[in-house]
Amino acid sequence: MSEGELQRRVGAFLRAHRQQIGLSQEAFAEHVGVHRTYMGSIERGEENLTLRSVEKLAGILDADPIAMLTFTPDDCAGS
Amino acid sequence: MSEGELQRRVGAFLRAHRQQIGLSQEAFAEHVGVHRTYMGSIERGEENLTLRSVEKLAGILDADPIAMLTFTPDDCAGS
Repeated sequence: MSEGELQRRVGAFLRAHRQQIGLSQEAFAEHVGVHRTYMGSIERGEENLTLRSVEKLAGILDADPIAMLTFTPDDCAGS
Repeated sequence: MSEGELQRRVGAFLRAHRQQIGLSQEAFAEHVGVHRTYMGSIERGEENLTLRSVEKLAGILDADPIAMLTFTPDDCAGS
């Protein structure tokens, strides 16, 4: 696994999830409780998140942290 | 998933891996390149590791990061 792969997967999961529920990045960031620019950075896979942060995000979105950490954007190619 | 579960799984994986290869905590910490007390803390699941740290540990041990993040000590109960 290339370094940064896990954080890129989490970011891709969050972006796909947000698009699925039809929220703007700004509205999604507010929903999650983080700043818009920080959420953008997370979505782009640029944030070296801690394990607890992943769990917190998963909790807020009622998602499985492992599903976030194994997500591939290919799951929704073209979106 | 209860908060801290991911870091506890990683810690349990590392401890089980270390015991399997028959290294002391001190020798294992040296092998991984971290301080002995820090490794003890990681093994006990007390460290809120970052995703990149998990990837780095996995790389050093030639392990799958997802296997570390999904590990349950029940896999080797009694050891």
